[in-house]
Amino acid sequence: MNAEILSIGDELLIGQVINTNQAYIAEQLNRVGILVDRMSTVGDIEGDILQALAEAFTTHDVVTVTGGLGPTHDDITRAAVCSYFNTDLVRDQASMERIERVFARRNLPMLPRNRDQAMVPRGCTVIPNALGTAPGYFFNRKGKYCIVLPGVPYEMESMMAEFVIPYFERHPTGAIIRHRTLKTTGIAESVLAERIGPVQDLFRNHEGTTLAFLPGPTGVRLRITVRASTRDEAEQQITHVESVLRERAGKYLYGADEEEIEEVVGRLLAERHLTIAVAESCTGGLIADRITNVPGSSRYFERGIVVYSNASKLAELGVPSALIEQHGAVSKPVAEAMALGVRTKSNADIGISTTGIAGPTGGSAEKPVGLVWIGYSDCEGTLALEFYYGEDRRRIKERASQAALDLVRRRLLRIE
Amino acid sequence: MNAEILSIGDELLIGQVINTNQAYIAEQLNRVGILVDRMSTVGDIEGDILQALAEAFTTHDVVTVTGGLGPTHDDITRAAVCSYFNTDLVRDQASMERIERVFARRNLPMLPRNRDQAMVPRGCTVIPNALGTAPGYFFNRKGKYCIVLPGVPYEMESMMAEFVIPYFERHPTGAIIRHRTLKTTGIAESVLAERIGPVQDLFRNHEGTTLAFLPGPTGVRLRITVRASTRDEAEQQITHVESVLRERAGKYLYGADEEEIEEVVGRLLAERHLTIAVAESCTGGLIADRITNVPGSSRYFERGIVVYSNASKLAELGVPSALIEQHGAVSKPVAEAMALGVRTKSNADIGISTTGIAGPTGGSAEKPVGLVWIGYSDCEGTLALEFYYGEDRRRIKERASQAALDLVRRRLLRIE
Repeated sequence: MNAEILSIGDELLIGQVINTNQAYIAEQLNRVGILVDRMSTVGDIEGDILQALAEAFTTHDVVTVTGGLGPTHDDITRAAVCSYFNTDLVRDQASMERIERVFARRNLPMLPRNRDQAMVPRGCTVIPNALGTAPGYFFNRKGKYCIVLPGVPYEMESMMAEFVIPYFERHPTGAIIRHRTLKTTGIAESVLAERIGPVQDLFRNHEGTTLAFLPGPTGVRLRITVRASTRDEAEQQITHVESVLRERAGKYLYGADEEEIEEVVGRLLAERHLTIAVAESCTGGLIADRITNVPGSSRYFERGIVVYSNASKLAELGVPSALIEQHGAVSKPVAEAMALGVRTKSNADIGISTTGIAGPTGGSAEKPVGLVWIGYSDCEGTLALEFYYGEDRRRIKERASQAALDLVRRRLLRIE
Repeated sequence: MNAEILSIGDELLIGQVINTNQAYIAEQLNRVGILVDRMSTVGDIEGDILQALAEAFTTHDVVTVTGGLGPTHDDITRAAVCSYFNTDLVRDQASMERIERVFARRNLPMLPRNRDQAMVPRGCTVIPNALGTAPGYFFNRKGKYCIVLPGVPYEMESMMAEFVIPYFERHPTGAIIRHRTLKTTGIAESVLAERIGPVQDLFRNHEGTTLAFLPGPTGVRLRITVRASTRDEAEQQITHVESVLRERAGKYLYGADEEEIEEVVGRLLAERHLTIAVAESCTGGLIADRITNVPGSSRYFERGIVVYSNASKLAELGVPSALIEQHGAVSKPVAEAMALGVRTKSNADIGISTTGIAGPTGGSAEKPVGLVWIGYSDCEGTLALEFYYGEDRRRIKERASQAALDLVRRRLLRIE
């Protein structure tokens, strides 16, 4: 089966919003063997939506539509869909109750325009929206599918995961497409490519296998894609390629698919009944934020201290002023004193720290913007490592937080 | 003039890469008065490219094409473009010299396939690529334009900025398009729509004006778009609509365009020479992270404490255990004690705090997942407010951090 992904919204056409929904939906449809061969975006104009729908539905088995289902005047996707399928609106009781619950929970008054969102095209299957008020619609017309979802990414994603993908898993499309992503950090794309070597023998000449290098600010991902005619063939090939890649990527590989390094580190800490405390300067709370994104992190995350002022480095972590005066706040001794200080005061098993120059000002010839020291302390000792992360403030924070978490992973696994 | 943006590449269709080029090109074309009313993506298949080109060129004055100009076997955009314009390839001497320079600079051997990139469609104007090896092509056919650029974002962006936009500045299209986005928080989309009322009289019947409601997890943005025939008409209309919207959105409006609430709060703090300290439980460091994303935040951000354990609430902030035992860690008195505690210990002018249940576990009937108390303390007193933020862990953190920063904004501006 082939699919077109249709996005609706003026905000996309003027470039205000980067369309992340199309990539997400494509990836999900691939998982259930549906190949996307076109993506389109049109504005909040009924004629344009109708024309795009008609073109998409003529040449595709599956059409997904996102955006324009909200409660305001510029949301006209529902009307266009009704017009295209030549149907009218009926009230959906389950959606009504869900909307009422959302408003009751948030303690907000419910307006007629909110109630109106429970009106859905007659003849569709309603896709429940657990995270918002706009339900989705699922049409099956002579073996072709039209799936209409809200444009808010997290609502759309949860509806894809809870309803759309399970539907196609129950009604398999015949083709098998499998993706597997392996995540590395701390190694450049070209160096990783050298380590991995020629891909053809890695693939054992399997024609449906491809490997992509996807570099990002916190590491390089390796995506394996296998197209096969049976599930077994796909699984065997993925398993083979993955095991070779894992061996060749070695210590740089920390996880797979959507797994974040904070989840990997969290699992290691929880398994070993260890606790961690964080002292952050240049990362400004991002490490603590990432650690606490993981459900259950309260079991191992003891506390975090963001010491932006020198006074707070002294008061919170006991970093001697003499050390700061002698070496500067961005230095190996201060990073070590911070990691040790936060571990000692919190009675945590592990302390980590960051101190660096996130810019845009504050750099010098000797200590340029992008210089970061990362400290680590446990009962066996304390150390600090030096990194350079370019000149973009947010990128410096992201890369330093990744390296700090990777340092914990490596120490726990006794790598290097 | 209207435009279609056409992207080419299998990596887009399988969701491997998020398409950022379309938003960039749309924004740039808007600047020179060219309206984008469709975006499309197709794979590296000649038939699909030809069909997409034909459809786009029939209904649009400007078509931009990106991707598929590289040196490898899967780059077939050039062949498709030649076929569409019924032309062949000629060697472009300037491109040849540029490619030779690139390889000399990188100290890399030059292969026949690199040399081949200097072959361009006969009859086009060559768009120089200062940052890579693939030149772009510019076709002007009976007042319609086709612009073909590489898909590598920074190469494409530099060619847009150096060649395409200057061309349309020298050959004005006549239309003026202006956008302005106003950002609100703490108010539901539907309630905001009620406050703003009917848009037609707001627009004073100006036909080229539209207003879009763009809801997101941390607030609703209002985007005004004005199409006009003169710059003055556009500016006057934007100014008028903005001033009415500012009045009607009132205290919920915190900024405009790309401005984040942490920048607004940072500016207010810096202007008043005030400092702030943060005590976070459920937001886990996100507030500190956001505050420190702003360059220069070290002037007013004193420190942040992430108190995930009850022990740390006591040790770091002096929250009495009796208070936690009596009311629970997620309660008004504890939120207040945290805000006061962090302010006192850090000698900052303002202290803010969060304590809540980010889930997925830890909720109860009385205190469900999503319940958050936000505390605020300054020399005039201490208070805490209660919020409910649904069930998604990351959304709860994002919305609570937004509300905490908005509380600071409102107190500083003496709103409510």
